[in-house]
Amino acid sequence: MTAMAQEEGNAPRGRPRSAASRQAVLQAAYAILIEEGLGGFSVEAVAARAGVARTTIYRWWPTKGLLAFDSFREAFGAQLVFARTDAPAADLRALVRSLARALAGPAGRLAASVMAQAQSDPEVQKLFLEQFSLPLRRHSAGVLKAGIAAGVFRSDLKVERLLDALVGAVYLRLMFGLPLDAAWADALAETLLGGCMA
Amino acid sequence: MTAMAQEEGNAPRGRPRSAASRQAVLQAAYAILIEEGLGGFSVEAVAARAGVARTTIYRWWPTKGLLAFDSFREAFGAQLVFARTDAPAADLRALVRSLARALAGPAGRLAASVMAQAQSDPEVQKLFLEQFSLPLRRHSAGVLKAGIAAGVFRSDLKVERLLDALVGAVYLRLMFGLPLDAAWADALAETLLGGCMA
Repeated sequence: MTAMAQEEGNAPRGRPRSAASRQAVLQAAYAILIEEGLGGFSVEAVAARAGVARTTIYRWWPTKGLLAFDSFREAFGAQLVFARTDAPAADLRALVRSLARALAGPAGRLAASVMAQAQSDPEVQKLFLEQFSLPLRRHSAGVLKAGIAAGVFRSDLKVERLLDALVGAVYLRLMFGLPLDAAWADALAETLLGGCMA
Repeated sequence: MTAMAQEEGNAPRGRPRSAASRQAVLQAAYAILIEEGLGGFSVEAVAARAGVARTTIYRWWPTKGLLAFDSFREAFGAQLVFARTDAPAADLRALVRSLARALAGPAGRLAASVMAQAQSDPEVQKLFLEQFSLPLRRHSAGVLKAGIAAGVFRSDLKVERLLDALVGAVYLRLMFGLPLDAAWADALAETLLGGCMA
């Protein structure tokens, strides 16, 4: 938003209009990703769907890869529950369940295809890690660290390894087209929680 | 081995000779997989390297996919530690460490490429699950169930979910080319063990 506001100047009317354009671009980009996959994704198509000029898009996102991952992370991340209540175990359960639910639909098939592509394309792998996986892991780590701070989770909990196990289990199901339902998510959360409690 | 012994008849000299041929075929197949990947893998190449007739191979393995996965599972599985001592926590640590070590080398790159291919090829996915993943999961489940039977692991441990977390975490590292060293494996094992103990 800061970079965008600078680009648009400080005119009072500039900010709301550019924020709306930015949202329109991200929504159009995500819709195209879900409908066409990365293969059918282009800045031209996004510009046409969002009703903005290509130059406007390139001003905010220097490459189509950055735009694709930005739109994916925003739409996907909005479905995750990063709660930090006084019940850290329930917060972790809610996070696991929301992750499974978000990946059970078309976003999961998209994530699986991106991950498959990342295996043979280092640029896609880098974008996936930096623009998608790591930002969402940081939020998830926050949920676990809040549980440690509250004294409910053990102080020596290896947050990054717990997240490897959580995210890895979900990816594994996704890769093999196995169901990511609430019962599976709850059983995974219970299994992992045992290793978290103080 | 049973089907093979039947094919070869019950002549006293038949069994050792065919067992040796079978091992030669599996070793040749694995060597080609590691050197060339699935793309360079063919029954012709395996037959030439093992010094057996193609018809001999087809008698035991109806398709090249079955041969490839059989050789991969045998060579890979032999590196895993499925110990069942009176110290179940140490057995689980040894399993996680052996899994990480086995995948840190060329076998890991092969596994990652097969998994990537499995995303877009249902036949490869089926073979990977049935011929590789599920047999090794059954052995791993045995280690966990022995810990439950010994009263060291909790009786309501969800063995399959624990394996999702363990295998998923390893795959995740593999996919992103992150190191699978002993320190990482030990930290993962400790994190998971908390959820296992009675």
